[in-house]
Amino acid sequence: MQRPLILVTNDDGITAPGIRHLVEFMNEIGDVVVVAPNSPQSGKGHAITINSTLTFEEISLEGPQHDYSLSGTPVDCVKFALDKILDRKPDLVVSGINHGANSSINVIYSGTMSAAVEAGVEGLQAIGFSLLDFSWDADFSQSKEFIQEIVLKTLKNPLPKGIVLNVNIPKLPKEEIKGIKVCRQANAKWEESFDERINPHGKRYYWLTGYFNNMDESPDADETALGEGYISVVPVKFDLTAHEHIDSLKELLNR
Amino acid sequence: MQRPLILVTNDDGITAPGIRHLVEFMNEIGDVVVVAPNSPQSGKGHAITINSTLTFEEISLEGPQHDYSLSGTPVDCVKFALDKILDRKPDLVVSGINHGANSSINVIYSGTMSAAVEAGVEGLQAIGFSLLDFSWDADFSQSKEFIQEIVLKTLKNPLPKGIVLNVNIPKLPKEEIKGIKVCRQANAKWEESFDERINPHGKRYYWLTGYFNNMDESPDADETALGEGYISVVPVKFDLTAHEHIDSLKELLNR
Repeated sequence: MQRPLILVTNDDGITAPGIRHLVEFMNEIGDVVVVAPNSPQSGKGHAITINSTLTFEEISLEGPQHDYSLSGTPVDCVKFALDKILDRKPDLVVSGINHGANSSINVIYSGTMSAAVEAGVEGLQAIGFSLLDFSWDADFSQSKEFIQEIVLKTLKNPLPKGIVLNVNIPKLPKEEIKGIKVCRQANAKWEESFDERINPHGKRYYWLTGYFNNMDESPDADETALGEGYISVVPVKFDLTAHEHIDSLKELLNR
Repeated sequence: MQRPLILVTNDDGITAPGIRHLVEFMNEIGDVVVVAPNSPQSGKGHAITINSTLTFEEISLEGPQHDYSLSGTPVDCVKFALDKILDRKPDLVVSGINHGANSSINVIYSGTMSAAVEAGVEGLQAIGFSLLDFSWDADFSQSKEFIQEIVLKTLKNPLPKGIVLNVNIPKLPKEEIKGIKVCRQANAKWEESFDERINPHGKRYYWLTGYFNNMDESPDADETALGEGYISVVPVKFDLTAHEHIDSLKELLNR
């Protein structure tokens, strides 16, 4: 059997420890091509670069894979890889390992997950991985076995059309991780607050900050599984239609 | 009855003709506050500004509304308005009128729609409006009656929890618009291609370009309704969970 072609990207930038670990894990499974941002792109969501231009470099990093660094967003990286770098469709696109959680509502802000979603829109198998540890020197080694297991199962049993996976890994030693749980996105939101400062010229400026408010204690929510020490897996779709409300809205608005 | 408080934003920037028309239409319905980007933010999706800072100015534009221009993304505008500008929760958040379509898969790239989705996450009523005309001097006047009708109905009959509306308006004279149709997001994608150029220093650079590929001729898809001359309304949700695939994935991945 031919080795699978695996495209790897992320939003923390091509040299982040998270993506270097993911590349190392994927090199044991397939032929790896990395196309990732040349700078941090956290919180970029599904942004694409349309009002400016992109450049890329092939760079030399440890390992047998090819590494390309792009001046764009995570979604740009997927689009650019498919059009300009890969000579065939990849068997799988993986994004991450993100430094920090992308569970619950964070899926819509996350560049890591948006890269996976973009691959899904392109009809490809795709998975985003995130570790619940923002630290640059987070311990990614404990997730190796779980990530490889999810990837191998997905390669053998392709995901249904129209979905990608959002995988979050608790910050725990490997032996304390209880297992893997398929979940739904918890109902949660950020309670934002802007931190006001004064610049040296006397002008006010603001940092976006806030705290995460989980409003969902139900046993099938990803936040709950993570809290209990499980790896959470949420199937994510990009048909955003609220099909269940079409009929009542037709009654109200159609004419 | 108290006049409703309406927050207006967009992604084309606070001086774009599309938002100025929307402000004019909303001034006839409620008390309007505008918090919109100080520069074009098309294609920014759900991006938020976390690695840099924000500034804002109150500016003076025609009309009774208050206008605030922010140095961030459309989603930043909604967050900033709620935390720093408005003294109570708005009764409605409207975004647009976008110069160009946000139907089908474009909902995930669109800053206009992401602002509406962010308002939905905050528990607010929200609607994004887009006209199928990219031109800066597009004719927005034909959409006035339809936009006001949708807004008034939504204020009177609040949307179900967890959804916002994505409204697209065909580029047609008012008398040729056939009506309003609640639809689902068409199955479509962009076939991207990057346009390669050489800069004055001999280095290659790329513009993202491509064409829109609608793969969905079904009568309940938004693209179909628009093609037939209807205004399309898609209820959009931000629980991205593919609930229908949870059971089969549990069988494959749970342990």
